[in-house]
Amino acid sequence: MGTMTVEMIAVTALDRISVDGGDVLHAIKRVDPGFIDFGEAYFSGINVGYVKAWKRHLAMTLNIVVPVGSVQFVFVDELGGIREEIIGTEVGRYVRLTVPPGIWFGFKGLFSPRSILMNVADIPHEPHEVERLAVNSFNFDWGAKK
Amino acid sequence: MGTMTVEMIAVTALDRISVDGGDVLHAIKRVDPGFIDFGEAYFSGINVGYVKAWKRHLAMTLNIVVPVGSVQFVFVDELGGIREEIIGTEVGRYVRLTVPPGIWFGFKGLFSPRSILMNVADIPHEPHEVERLAVNSFNFDWGAKK
Repeated sequence: MGTMTVEMIAVTALDRISVDGGDVLHAIKRVDPGFIDFGEAYFSGINVGYVKAWKRHLAMTLNIVVPVGSVQFVFVDELGGIREEIIGTEVGRYVRLTVPPGIWFGFKGLFSPRSILMNVADIPHEPHEVERLAVNSFNFDWGAKK
Repeated sequence: MGTMTVEMIAVTALDRISVDGGDVLHAIKRVDPGFIDFGEAYFSGINVGYVKAWKRHLAMTLNIVVPVGSVQFVFVDELGGIREEIIGTEVGRYVRLTVPPGIWFGFKGLFSPRSILMNVADIPHEPHEVERLAVNSFNFDWGAKK
């Protein structure tokens, strides 16, 4: 692949349908922008104040939504570009982030007791296409833990 | 399709991986039992004590997980068969229900303030393949609202 930059991360607005007893929230359809293929869907909880960073996928495109809480995402590309996105139902920004491979990312939980993100990935989880770095590997201040 | 019965609903155990800062919960991979195709993924919130019932899909196979809370599902087939499943992280039963088309279902939220279910459907939402009946259409006692 060529060099992926943080400008290539797409933000897609999602419908939230008001229903008596509990809303319905769209996440992703196979005809939606950013959908490539279905490999796997999984959830990641993130407790308030906690940071999970840094990770980079070499092959996977991520489609991330936050149906519970709010999450601060930070993306870093190989050209030094950095981008922040705060998304989630609790912050009134229920959108989907499409993240191409090759971009470092980390995230912090902003909602108590925890937020939930879902990733619909175009390939199933494969350890060999994931790279990790320690949280202090980039010059980014995540702020206080709690 | 032939007559679908509640015995055809599959229950698949899912992995929950303990991670510092928030667990990772598997939902569905394309190689998993019960996966047919990817049409759409969406969330449905269900407030504690509320019931959403009854609905039947004529074409869609549902793959349902409950990453937040716990939900009581009730299934009714055309032969009068009835089946209950209570699933969700809060009840310690994090499993996936694969529900073939042709089966009536309803569900009730058991966790305060609300539970979240996700459905990974093999086709995108299509109003013409959905049938609905009023909550009192079957002889099932959902219990008190709250």
